[in-house]
Amino acid sequence: MTSPSAPPPAPIIEFIVTGDEVMRGLIADTNTAMTASRLYPLGLSLRRTTVVGDRGEDIRRALLETSVRADFCIVSGGLGPTSDDLTAACAAEAKGVRMVTHQPWIAHLHERWAKIRPGEPLPKNNLRQADVPDTAEVLGNPNGSAPAFALQIDRCLFFFLPGVPREYHALIQDLVMPRLVAATGNAVLRSRILHCYGVTESRLDELVTPIREAHPEVRFGFRTRFPENHVTLVALAADAVTAEANLARVEAMCRQILGSFVYGHDGVTFAQAMGERLAARGETVCCAESCTGGLLTQLLTEVGGSSKWTAGAFVTYSYELKTSMLGVPKELLEKQGAVSESVARLMAEGARERSGATWTLAITGIAGPGGGTADKPVGTVWLALCGPRGTVARLAKYRGDRGQVRMQSAFGALQLLREQLDHEAS
Amino acid sequence: MTSPSAPPPAPIIEFIVTGDEVMRGLIADTNTAMTASRLYPLGLSLRRTTVVGDRGEDIRRALLETSVRADFCIVSGGLGPTSDDLTAACAAEAKGVRMVTHQPWIAHLHERWAKIRPGEPLPKNNLRQADVPDTAEVLGNPNGSAPAFALQIDRCLFFFLPGVPREYHALIQDLVMPRLVAATGNAVLRSRILHCYGVTESRLDELVTPIREAHPEVRFGFRTRFPENHVTLVALAADAVTAEANLARVEAMCRQILGSFVYGHDGVTFAQAMGERLAARGETVCCAESCTGGLLTQLLTEVGGSSKWTAGAFVTYSYELKTSMLGVPKELLEKQGAVSESVARLMAEGARERSGATWTLAITGIAGPGGGTADKPVGTVWLALCGPRGTVARLAKYRGDRGQVRMQSAFGALQLLREQLDHEAS
Repeated sequence: MTSPSAPPPAPIIEFIVTGDEVMRGLIADTNTAMTASRLYPLGLSLRRTTVVGDRGEDIRRALLETSVRADFCIVSGGLGPTSDDLTAACAAEAKGVRMVTHQPWIAHLHERWAKIRPGEPLPKNNLRQADVPDTAEVLGNPNGSAPAFALQIDRCLFFFLPGVPREYHALIQDLVMPRLVAATGNAVLRSRILHCYGVTESRLDELVTPIREAHPEVRFGFRTRFPENHVTLVALAADAVTAEANLARVEAMCRQILGSFVYGHDGVTFAQAMGERLAARGETVCCAESCTGGLLTQLLTEVGGSSKWTAGAFVTYSYELKTSMLGVPKELLEKQGAVSESVARLMAEGARERSGATWTLAITGIAGPGGGTADKPVGTVWLALCGPRGTVARLAKYRGDRGQVRMQSAFGALQLLREQLDHEAS
Repeated sequence: MTSPSAPPPAPIIEFIVTGDEVMRGLIADTNTAMTASRLYPLGLSLRRTTVVGDRGEDIRRALLETSVRADFCIVSGGLGPTSDDLTAACAAEAKGVRMVTHQPWIAHLHERWAKIRPGEPLPKNNLRQADVPDTAEVLGNPNGSAPAFALQIDRCLFFFLPGVPREYHALIQDLVMPRLVAATGNAVLRSRILHCYGVTESRLDELVTPIREAHPEVRFGFRTRFPENHVTLVALAADAVTAEANLARVEAMCRQILGSFVYGHDGVTFAQAMGERLAARGETVCCAESCTGGLLTQLLTEVGGSSKWTAGAFVTYSYELKTSMLGVPKELLEKQGAVSESVARLMAEGARERSGATWTLAITGIAGPGGGTADKPVGTVWLALCGPRGTVARLAKYRGDRGQVRMQSAFGALQLLREQLDHEAS
């Protein structure tokens, strides 16, 4: 017997991931890491993740083993319409019930299809997705055709979710998390994710450790999303007023110690944060991209409403387009090479003249895997910013593969702009 | 009893990953996905990955469960010098042997330390890493201070490796793979992934089902990577000639029934496939992007070597840049709006004149979430292609969120080019 004053033991939670593609390394499972980083601060005890392929006996075995160990289990994958989607049938077999057709979902599938592909017949296979184990609670799926469902097997409540990240994330957030919060014995959860750029994970941990240790009423979680690092703060309490006050107090302390490492919170991207800051000043940005090949502009425009801060961009891979689109002299390119301070500056200045944007960002570098030399190895990148008060340039040396060098270059250019805006504001 | 002609069953292999950081979502486990993608083609049957935190009972339980299920198990993590590195001790406990100090490794640790930090004393904790379970075979570690070791527990041979990716990868490659290759006996595996665009996953399944049912010697898998769908074919046989012949026969049947839905195979992206096709013809492409804001160009340039098919791009979000960068008349924009056939055509034509590219692709549409009207709802996109023989345009109506509309628009533009090249080839 536990003593009356002891808190109830934390519920045990496990993950099961199904799919030959994950098992074979064709795709990495990113859903569980994301979910774990959200659940950990709730005080749930994450004990095990099991990954199995698309084999009925392996899925059934994993479900039955977990059913006697865990209080909750999140299962992802294998709910689609094809013959290798076995999870729902395996769940029924593990529990010893038959599959039943959920009629409301049949109607929903027909409606959904008629909207997406009016006039086309619904493939018969799709209707399979309305079959769920008897006694399952159908949870639905706002973004897809396979419904999530909950099913109790032995001592464990299983949540079966589609593995497609977009569908999975929405279901975790809206349907699963609220139930797990309730299971912790607390009524209310308030959370804040602080997005940081320019600080390593270990330094971040060092900086906030004194706050974390002094304030057990707020739980801390850390997550890397290259090249950013995120700190999650979670306040659980019996009522909303307490949870909000606790969170606000600890958040303020963290923001003070982290200073300008924090660029935003709760899902805002770095490019979006910069864009919104410019829009608030009535200003715009235009990019002149070489080695990033449109990546920075794509980051600036993937957000709705981005026409407020970006009117367009120049992607100039070749010498010829650097000359014709941006006015960089051919002789300079031939003499200094495209990856040089003067070319970066002229790209930014040329873009500003031609776009009318308040600020222009130029990126020219060697993303790899080819193209590096002893003088200018892969990862050598010149960044330049041109604005109302002139042009600044910076040499960066990034490490990593082509994708990482390109991503760091895009962030580095935005950081150049950010420092300029900070400088003007101070 | 299996018949005498049946190949021996493929050895069963599992992974165990230990570490609170993985369990809490702080870091994603990338070692197993990498390893799985190398092992699968050997014909090893990858049956399960188990991830547990740094708790002794959870590690011991995972080892003992696996010891009766698998022939081989690769265990990563928990071999370091700190107090939360429990894996070696847990391995000894699971087998029921004591820990012994491997004297040659003690000598190696002293030598290694003297080289890295000459003059400094070796921290005592570090010597813990020379302790291994009795009867273990010490495999060493060229890049670190914790030695890998092999240990038989029940029917399973376990390979214990450090989790640090650089150390892990070298050990897998040099010490573990050769032993596993030897264990596969005669079984040979050949696989092919067909990448499809323009067909739903369920329709794909319907189309290939008759082939799949008639040819059990080849295993089928399906995977969605929006907006693509992939079908994986795997042939396992006693010898390479049989596996290759079986795979080739079934692949040819699939390609015939899927026709032009198949754009490439084995990991090539849609943009890359188009780019390489152009490069082979000595041609280039340049994009004029409005609503996709650089996404199509980013897809064309994320691949190494893309300067062979793309020299750059115009991103023209605003009316002003459509006019100044591409020469679209201001009056036309005001009269017809940016999302119109004539603007799409003029964008493509203006880009071709100014870039010198063989082909230009223009995209102008409403990606959402705002900006839609009754006439032109969100998802309305005009695509245009300009090439040596003139300009073609197409109206597309896409569904989904901003990201999905943008991605479908980028693919739709590439598809326009693809159809043109197919037409010329036919």
